[in-house]
Amino acid sequence: MTQEPSPGRWMRREMSEQPEVLRQLMGARPHNIERLRTVLPTRPVGVVFVARGSSDQAASYGRYLWETYAGVPVSMAAASVHTRYRSRLALDGWLAVAISQSGETPEVIEVLDRLGRSGARTVAVSNDPQSHLAQQAEVALDLQAGAETAVPATKTFTASLLAMVQILNAVTELPWSPAQEEHAVAAMAETIDDEAAVQELAEESLTRHPVHIGRSFTYPVAVEAALKFKESTGRASEGYASADLLHGPVAAVDAEALLVGYAARGPVFDDVVHAVDVARSRGASVALVVERGSPVPAHVRPVWVPEGTPEALAPLSMVVRAQQLALASSLASGRDPDRPGGLSKVTRTS
Amino acid sequence: MTQEPSPGRWMRREMSEQPEVLRQLMGARPHNIERLRTVLPTRPVGVVFVARGSSDQAASYGRYLWETYAGVPVSMAAASVHTRYRSRLALDGWLAVAISQSGETPEVIEVLDRLGRSGARTVAVSNDPQSHLAQQAEVALDLQAGAETAVPATKTFTASLLAMVQILNAVTELPWSPAQEEHAVAAMAETIDDEAAVQELAEESLTRHPVHIGRSFTYPVAVEAALKFKESTGRASEGYASADLLHGPVAAVDAEALLVGYAARGPVFDDVVHAVDVARSRGASVALVVERGSPVPAHVRPVWVPEGTPEALAPLSMVVRAQQLALASSLASGRDPDRPGGLSKVTRTS
Repeated sequence: MTQEPSPGRWMRREMSEQPEVLRQLMGARPHNIERLRTVLPTRPVGVVFVARGSSDQAASYGRYLWETYAGVPVSMAAASVHTRYRSRLALDGWLAVAISQSGETPEVIEVLDRLGRSGARTVAVSNDPQSHLAQQAEVALDLQAGAETAVPATKTFTASLLAMVQILNAVTELPWSPAQEEHAVAAMAETIDDEAAVQELAEESLTRHPVHIGRSFTYPVAVEAALKFKESTGRASEGYASADLLHGPVAAVDAEALLVGYAARGPVFDDVVHAVDVARSRGASVALVVERGSPVPAHVRPVWVPEGTPEALAPLSMVVRAQQLALASSLASGRDPDRPGGLSKVTRTS
Repeated sequence: MTQEPSPGRWMRREMSEQPEVLRQLMGARPHNIERLRTVLPTRPVGVVFVARGSSDQAASYGRYLWETYAGVPVSMAAASVHTRYRSRLALDGWLAVAISQSGETPEVIEVLDRLGRSGARTVAVSNDPQSHLAQQAEVALDLQAGAETAVPATKTFTASLLAMVQILNAVTELPWSPAQEEHAVAAMAETIDDEAAVQELAEESLTRHPVHIGRSFTYPVAVEAALKFKESTGRASEGYASADLLHGPVAAVDAEALLVGYAARGPVFDDVVHAVDVARSRGASVALVVERGSPVPAHVRPVWVPEGTPEALAPLSMVVRAQQLALASSLASGRDPDRPGGLSKVTRTS
């Protein structure tokens, strides 16, 4: 006798695999860095990222890493410039990094090819070393995350974040130790085991318009949170940098909104808290995903993640909260997040 | 006896001033280019833009100009890297362009200062030559748009687009003639006079979730359309590149959505039309802002703008449609778009 598969079982399983996937990728670091150094002999003039969907949020995370810790300016590729206008940029001395879990998005493959022809050294990050993208790049980092079946990407996303760290590490020392990286993964595992923490938010999200905000390293978390919610529930949601929210979009934040801030300890913690507070003063229901022990204003609900993680690695746990919120919201609304309507794993834009 | 001021009178008046403002700025072109060439003797290694809100959409437009027509890679500054992490990027040979209508956003002023200290030559675009931003930059372009009173920026936005064109023009020939630029402004004036064209969409926007899409030069138009709508009506709206829409967010596009595409004739016209068609197949109500004579699929409502404009200048008329839609939607919902709740002209993030 066969059992009826339960909705969201793939998404939940793949979320639970994240710590193991990250530990495996950490194990591949020496090998990956050695290979990266064959195309990255010196500090690049600039880094250009090309990606779509969740991978674009990983690219955005990579952007903050490179600019903050290496002082290297970053451009996020506008695909149409390359695929439609066939412009050739002057990219001698640049590094081009393409991210695609499938490695089969035609647009990303074509853009990386053209960036290479424009003078950039090319690196691909994908979950399939046999993919066209991986085969085409000078160096391919394999996420080794195993098959991802649910449409909302989870383990390939967090693995892509760690891949961004390793690429940076090929040209500069990281401001944290391997032990701290292991702690961040342990914190993530603890977050995954505590699924109940988002249940109240998930129920509230069914009757409100969810808006997610972050800044710097948590900005990609906010955008990813909105995307996961859209994919899993079929309902609208928005993700902003906290400062961008205040430059206009806050006008649409009112008593119907559920505003979720992601605030890691560090130089931008207060900026996220401030924007959450502005949303609260406009009547929104508000919550803050923060590390335990972080100062949270009265009237703001904290959603905790473990403390003690380097600022730039806090997104690993924080994005789990976003994944859990999307999963729980999807299930609470009677959907199956594994197979939301109208989406497939490989989106064939060009 | 004093008359009760009518809601939206400032926004409408400032919209109507746009052709005059642009013609005046076109008249300043030789002078502006001469000054720009004092800091732009050669082709820059890269261009980095810093801006927030509507000005960030002008920056995005500038990005497409530089990469498409000059082959120069562009980075959109992440403010926190500079203001919070105080990272010093390696920007020798780069051009930094800050855009702020007031010239008084502290964050933009600080980031431009730090980009300059990192080696970039600095240009400011603002509507006040006495502003801190203008005073600080090596060269300041004055939009000369006159006082802008309504909170939703209109004439300073389109003037900023033209300023982007002039900065590019300081290092390379444009792919259109001055006469074509004048035609684009005449087309814009004709669009402004035809306010009724968006009335039906405005009424529909009150009961639907508006999503705007474009690609390349019309991508900033889509994002600006969403921002104008949020500011003017206090309701949520989203703006996407057509390809980004298909990589996930389309999951939240259904029969409750109003999807508006902005499609200029050129290499990406079909991409925008395709994404509009995908939205229609998911049940959304759809419309396309296009030049007269453009091929529009059955079941898609066209909202016309005059034809014969170079592709990269079509946004001047198309964004007027977005402004008109925001104005009409705001009025139809009984609000005053000149003074939406909770916003001021100068947003003081840092």
